[in-house]
Amino acid sequence: MNQKKRIFIGLDLGGSFIKYALGDHHGDLLYTGKKPSRADQSQDVIFSVIYEIVDHLREKQKELDGEIAAIGFGSPGSVDFDRGRLIGATPNINEWTDADIRGRLQSRYNLPTWVDNDANVMAYAEARVGAGRGMKNIIALTLGTGIGGGILIDGKIYRGSTYAGAEIGHMSINFAGPPCNCGNYGCIEQYASAPAMLRFYEANLKAAGKSIPKDLSTFLLFERSDQGEPEAQKAIQETCRYLGYALANLANIFNPDAIIIGGGVADADDSLMEMIAQEMKKRALPPAVRNLQVKRAELGNRAGMVGAILLAADCLDAER
Amino acid sequence: MNQKKRIFIGLDLGGSFIKYALGDHHGDLLYTGKKPSRADQSQDVIFSVIYEIVDHLREKQKELDGEIAAIGFGSPGSVDFDRGRLIGATPNINEWTDADIRGRLQSRYNLPTWVDNDANVMAYAEARVGAGRGMKNIIALTLGTGIGGGILIDGKIYRGSTYAGAEIGHMSINFAGPPCNCGNYGCIEQYASAPAMLRFYEANLKAAGKSIPKDLSTFLLFERSDQGEPEAQKAIQETCRYLGYALANLANIFNPDAIIIGGGVADADDSLMEMIAQEMKKRALPPAVRNLQVKRAELGNRAGMVGAILLAADCLDAER
Repeated sequence: MNQKKRIFIGLDLGGSFIKYALGDHHGDLLYTGKKPSRADQSQDVIFSVIYEIVDHLREKQKELDGEIAAIGFGSPGSVDFDRGRLIGATPNINEWTDADIRGRLQSRYNLPTWVDNDANVMAYAEARVGAGRGMKNIIALTLGTGIGGGILIDGKIYRGSTYAGAEIGHMSINFAGPPCNCGNYGCIEQYASAPAMLRFYEANLKAAGKSIPKDLSTFLLFERSDQGEPEAQKAIQETCRYLGYALANLANIFNPDAIIIGGGVADADDSLMEMIAQEMKKRALPPAVRNLQVKRAELGNRAGMVGAILLAADCLDAER
Repeated sequence: MNQKKRIFIGLDLGGSFIKYALGDHHGDLLYTGKKPSRADQSQDVIFSVIYEIVDHLREKQKELDGEIAAIGFGSPGSVDFDRGRLIGATPNINEWTDADIRGRLQSRYNLPTWVDNDANVMAYAEARVGAGRGMKNIIALTLGTGIGGGILIDGKIYRGSTYAGAEIGHMSINFAGPPCNCGNYGCIEQYASAPAMLRFYEANLKAAGKSIPKDLSTFLLFERSDQGEPEAQKAIQETCRYLGYALANLANIFNPDAIIIGGGVADADDSLMEMIAQEMKKRALPPAVRNLQVKRAELGNRAGMVGAILLAADCLDAER
């Protein structure tokens, strides 16, 4: 039989760049690239960038032994997975409200297209071929400017009844804690995101009468911690302790196989995961954490592309 | 065809009583009763009570037009659903450690038997034929001496990877809150269980210089609140506010169709559910609660029997 290898397009839309890839149904990437997403411009402009990318990938595909079978797309914001489009607005891309991603791509390319929230897509990648491969129930957290969450139940992405679930960054661990942008108080985003970590660091430096560096970043914080600076080390410990509180809740609720942590913190070494796991175990019910692994995400910034490709490949399989 | 109607045995083991019933696959109860569970005695004694009940129900069944097809059993403690037995100990029944409920019942009666944690069984009943009927994703909370939790994902009980999930009573809403029996701090059990509610009430009475009644109970508390006593009303408001915080977390994580509340608080009127829902909406992400119903459990203390019967009926169907 002269059947060509199926190739998938994976697109990962962010506030600064669109990352794109061609890959196979194992999630192996055959070709990758990125392009500014022009997220400050109109929806039509953003779609024109996406079209350029897909046109380019369709050209590239000709060099490969295969044919494009489907498109997978990860987008910020709430995504109606069944319709493949945004629900309402998303903070980092002003004009992206209600964007009909599947509608536009399918009508232009006549290729089956699946769209999901970017945190879900990343969690899916980690679950399928990353830190959670072979596991069934997984919670994924991405610690960045905010905290993204993904929930895998029995290997499937759990989206909630109206696609608004898995907002784990907005689980409050202290109802009287600092106000969050979301309107709630004490969300873990206020305790374990990159900005929160830097706030702890600044407070520690101030308390020690030290000056605050102008080029403050989590990179610098980790560097200084490695160099043995107590204020930096303490900021990391504080973040891990709060993360431990959050993970204890997630363990008691989900009793998952693994909690996978990605984003800035995941760039640090595994000792951090150990520290977070220890804090979790101090608080969680013992049976809920006996077999639970706290793992660093493995796919780094490829997770979005890999997840989009695997989502498209698996959804296409399921339809057949 | 001369096929007899299938009848199911439902057993609901508690620290004081075993409730038992015969019912059909709709969860309709045909015959019910209860017997002291003798939970302070040996495992063999407790099983002898269970055998007496099953023997009795098999006699009763003869009066009905049907034959017993399976047994469903709700037990306190962590239950290995796939093996139908306890995992370790349970606080209210000393000698119930590792009780092999399915093994004992199947070998004695040669009837297929399914066993699950009592909170799961109650949640299942509410999901199938109670406040959550027709819905897919449901969180159930039972507020009593402790707080039991059940999670229904796509209509199926979610148990966690090692049957230790859905411990929603031990989600902390304040990492610096009062210590909980479980070893954690600020668990919702410390804010919204019956004892917590009574603690608020006592504190309010003390603060007002009033005496504390000796026969303090949630029944009395609700009665006095209905009579307009401000200290009682305030205790209920406090409990509802804390529950609102907890429900906001659950909404953000699960975006379920409904959160169903049973136990002592559910005996009060629907205005309480409204109060809890309002507190939840102040804190949750709007898309997560737009279609979310906060509902009072409907099945009361029949939920355990109904759930056990439906679990047995549905599991038997799924095996066929």
